Amino acid sequence: MNIKVDRNEFLKALITVSKATTLRNVGSLEGILLESYDDVLSLYATNKEIQISTIIDAKVIREGKLLINSRILSDIVRSFDNGEVEIDADENNNIKLTCLNSKFNITAMDYRTFPNKEVYNINDFIKMDNHVIRNMIKETSFACATSDSVSPILTGILIENNDEDIKFVAIDGFRMAIRSEQSKERYMNNIKCVVPSSTLNELNKILTNYDDDVFLNINDKKFVANIGRTQLVSSLLQGQFIDYGNLLPKESKTIVKMNKNELLSACERAAIISDEGRAHLITLHFTDNNLLLTSKSAYGNVEENININLSGEDLDISFNSRYVIDALKVIEDEKVILEFNSSNSPCLIKPVSSNKFTYLIMPVRISN
Amino acid sequence: MNIKVDRNEFLKALITVSKATTLRNVGSLEGILLESYDDVLSLYATNKEIQISTIIDAKVIREGKLLINSRILSDIVRSFDNGEVEIDADENNNIKLTCLNSKFNITAMDYRTFPNKEVYNINDFIKMDNHVIRNMIKETSFACATSDSVSPILTGILIENNDEDIKFVAIDGFRMAIRSEQSKERYMNNIKCVVPSSTLNELNKILTNYDDDVFLNINDKKFVANIGRTQLVSSLLQGQFIDYGNLLPKESKTIVKMNKNELLSACERAAIISDEGRAHLITLHFTDNNLLLTSKSAYGNVEENININLSGEDLDISFNSRYVIDALKVIEDEKVILEFNSSNSPCLIKPVSSNKFTYLIMPVRISN
Repeated sequence: MNIKVDRNEFLKALITVSKATTLRNVGSLEGILLESYDDVLSLYATNKEIQISTIIDAKVIREGKLLINSRILSDIVRSFDNGEVEIDADENNNIKLTCLNSKFNITAMDYRTFPNKEVYNINDFIKMDNHVIRNMIKETSFACATSDSVSPILTGILIENNDEDIKFVAIDGFRMAIRSEQSKERYMNNIKCVVPSSTLNELNKILTNYDDDVFLNINDKKFVANIGRTQLVSSLLQGQFIDYGNLLPKESKTIVKMNKNELLSACERAAIISDEGRAHLITLHFTDNNLLLTSKSAYGNVEENININLSGEDLDISFNSRYVIDALKVIEDEKVILEFNSSNSPCLIKPVSSNKFTYLIMPVRISN
Repeated sequence: MNIKVDRNEFLKALITVSKATTLRNVGSLEGILLESYDDVLSLYATNKEIQISTIIDAKVIREGKLLINSRILSDIVRSFDNGEVEIDADENNNIKLTCLNSKFNITAMDYRTFPNKEVYNINDFIKMDNHVIRNMIKETSFACATSDSVSPILTGILIENNDEDIKFVAIDGFRMAIRSEQSKERYMNNIKCVVPSSTLNELNKILTNYDDDVFLNINDKKFVANIGRTQLVSSLLQGQFIDYGNLLPKESKTIVKMNKNELLSACERAAIISDEGRAHLITLHFTDNNLLLTSKSAYGNVEENININLSGEDLDISFNSRYVIDALKVIEDEKVILEFNSSNSPCLIKPVSSNKFTYLIMPVRISN
């Protein structure tokens, strides 16, 4: 192979595909496969769960394939000042990497040891705005179960679409986040699959470097996302997801409207005193148009008073403060609505200005 | 005690004094001593090596002394929105901390278990500009020996003054950084002491929050720095510091003038390939008006060419790349001068535009 590429474009492509090598891989999976043909260079990396490929323009003097250690190659290209990077490799895998007055000689790995590149041509797709899908990931992924969960399926995000809406759902057993949004274009329907949250978090990182819309395609085994000339392919999680619709209460006996930042600040203050041994417990006393928020531990106790707008019955209820804080942090609206039925049944938190985000949280039962 | 203080002023004071509790203290040393009298609140913390005290304005309704856990108190005050913080403690050490609609109840520790507050009145002093002393710390402390050094005295910075100049010197056995500067005012002379670099790094952090000049006083046992109403007192390191003047070469057979950023970038690129097993070795070949910088390891090799201005003899010399990079990073000038005598004798690195900073680095001897 002998090619010339722009240093900035090359580095951006390396950063993108190397996300598929973030797991501690061994041997050939530490590599990025470079392939030059026509007027392009394609880059490809995989850890067998996620594979990422991208294509950049190149002056191709001699076509070829190379497999190079991802860390070394990224570090070298990052260290170059911007200019034209020349890659010149002989048949013995000796590579000259040149840029301006710098010349590196490194050795490639044997590309025949690398898994075959799989490329998915998307015909049917759901087209989503770049910023919208990043918001959907941010507003749900925090509520997924962690990797040591007893239900591996809950470490993923349920994606489903019906009609115009696409919906992301995350549940960890104590809380649930639901985010729905209209797609820009849609040529697929009745999708229902569970995508690892780690995949969607990597997709989110890639999207921050691009402005393009995202084209999603989902089949029985794979989640595919195309962003311009970049493609991310991920395995799906197999198993039965919780029937989340049944968890949502049908009515609410107490409805509270209040300032989001006042509630967030009060919860964060209470969390200073609440301790891990007591599940970061805070108690909310809703009476008239006042919320008294309390917390106590061996360190002392704290009381917060906030003006609220209450309709329905007064109520006392206790939560793990971290679960309330997590949800309030991703809500961008100035005001939130909280809905309750009793001290022992789930609470709903929603932004006032839209019905696109719903958060459900289970209370902590306090013995009297 | 019953007092009212401004939340922002109180938090700044807590951040300042809590730097004396950054080490993992036990019992009462985890506390900050608060003392109210006249129209002020004084705050004081110590880990027995460094003590920091500061004073802020306060409305004093009832004088008193309190010892409160530093982390809890700082977290609480940080969590308050800006406003007036009231501290109201009864004789049983039960404290009410109130700000706006938030009320914390916490318990104080017994202040009689805390070491006595030592306050040094500075009569003789050296007055230094805030930004100048921060630069002096930044440009020397990186060259101190680490805490596992065989020579504990080299973990400190030698401070000495003669006439108008104050000089900071750091040596770790392989390199030396010397920084000198004129004082703004001077009522002390013939100072010579070694201050722990950890003390000066804490002083640097404090100074970033203030604009005031620094008043230094040094006696046989203590280093004292006053910044406005804040005082830092530190123990000195005892022992014989290296006679650094003898290390400086008297003449130079090779003098090179070159662009600092080009040299720094080339060293950083070479460091990608240089490996730990070979002491991050890079080799510099100075010939005519060209520097060829090379490095090799199991990963491959790298060559860099840089235009230079050379007077004197050609030279080949090898260094640990990290030692060169460290020095170039703190030099703000665009151009540097390198001075050599042979491949086995120390090299000097200086900025072109001032004689205030001198860096000496020992080469790595390469067997032929």
